[in-house]
Amino acid sequence: MSVLDTIRDRRSIRDFLDEEVTDEQIEQILEAGRWAPSGLNNQPWRFAVIKNEEVKEQVAECTRYSSTIKAANVLIAVFLDSDVMYDRTKDVQSIGACIQNMLLAIHELGLGACWMGEILNQRQDVEKLLEIPDNLELMVVLAIGYPVPEARTSSRKDLNDLIQTEFK
Amino acid sequence: MSVLDTIRDRRSIRDFLDEEVTDEQIEQILEAGRWAPSGLNNQPWRFAVIKNEEVKEQVAECTRYSSTIKAANVLIAVFLDSDVMYDRTKDVQSIGACIQNMLLAIHELGLGACWMGEILNQRQDVEKLLEIPDNLELMVVLAIGYPVPEARTSSRKDLNDLIQTEFK
Repeated sequence: MSVLDTIRDRRSIRDFLDEEVTDEQIEQILEAGRWAPSGLNNQPWRFAVIKNEEVKEQVAECTRYSSTIKAANVLIAVFLDSDVMYDRTKDVQSIGACIQNMLLAIHELGLGACWMGEILNQRQDVEKLLEIPDNLELMVVLAIGYPVPEARTSSRKDLNDLIQTEFK
Repeated sequence: MSVLDTIRDRRSIRDFLDEEVTDEQIEQILEAGRWAPSGLNNQPWRFAVIKNEEVKEQVAECTRYSSTIKAANVLIAVFLDSDVMYDRTKDVQSIGACIQNMLLAIHELGLGACWMGEILNQRQDVEKLLEIPDNLELMVVLAIGYPVPEARTSSRKDLNDLIQTEFK
């Protein structure tokens, strides 16, 4: 599938089958994140991989959407490393690029994921239970697994509503 | 080319051939951006497309890297719409996802781009000359065109240096 098709075809997945995501798949996902662009090539992303059921249960307690975390086969938490930060806006953009690379790789691998944003409200609890050092700030938890087929409802604004101005 | 290969193969392009990027290509690039994920699906990205030489010259005056702007055939400026913002960190991440979608589409189309970050130092000048309303904040200018072949030097940290912790 082309990149454009993959981009359009990808959706958030909130429920997962009881099927294992392999270590090789996890490595391919992280590899996609690793190749994101960043300002000054500072590569501010750091990862935590959580497959352990007990730890996953503890992470689930840090969000209102615990069922998605529990159903996922693996979690990837992404952190911003303040030790290499140079401009918060640009560094957070880079983290977004890294996350999107991983979401596209996940879709291409036949897997699905949910970008868990609400969990940032409890980010210090997550950082503590994962024993993350002070220089790392939680940016997202990706809940990953084989998708349960479901109706897709998410849509997008018309392109004409997004183009502010054109200078031809 | 697969998504994973496109992700790994893409690099910043800072010099361009004197060849036109078509309206159809520009629409495909914006279409890729439009399908990025965002928190609450708020789609906070807005675009400005600049092909006009005179306007491009004026934008070039707002950055130290004016030669890249001048050499590009088209510029796409991306703005964050504060009217639909709900959480700055998450919204800026979404903008990063939107930018990365566009960079991957650009690469797939055989084009190249440079993510111009330094220009944010003069973002108010850019916003003024493009007559952008107050609710929009410049996030990036993408300089786009057909790439001049050049040696690639940008590399990435080893994956083992990025994985903070694993719970298997």
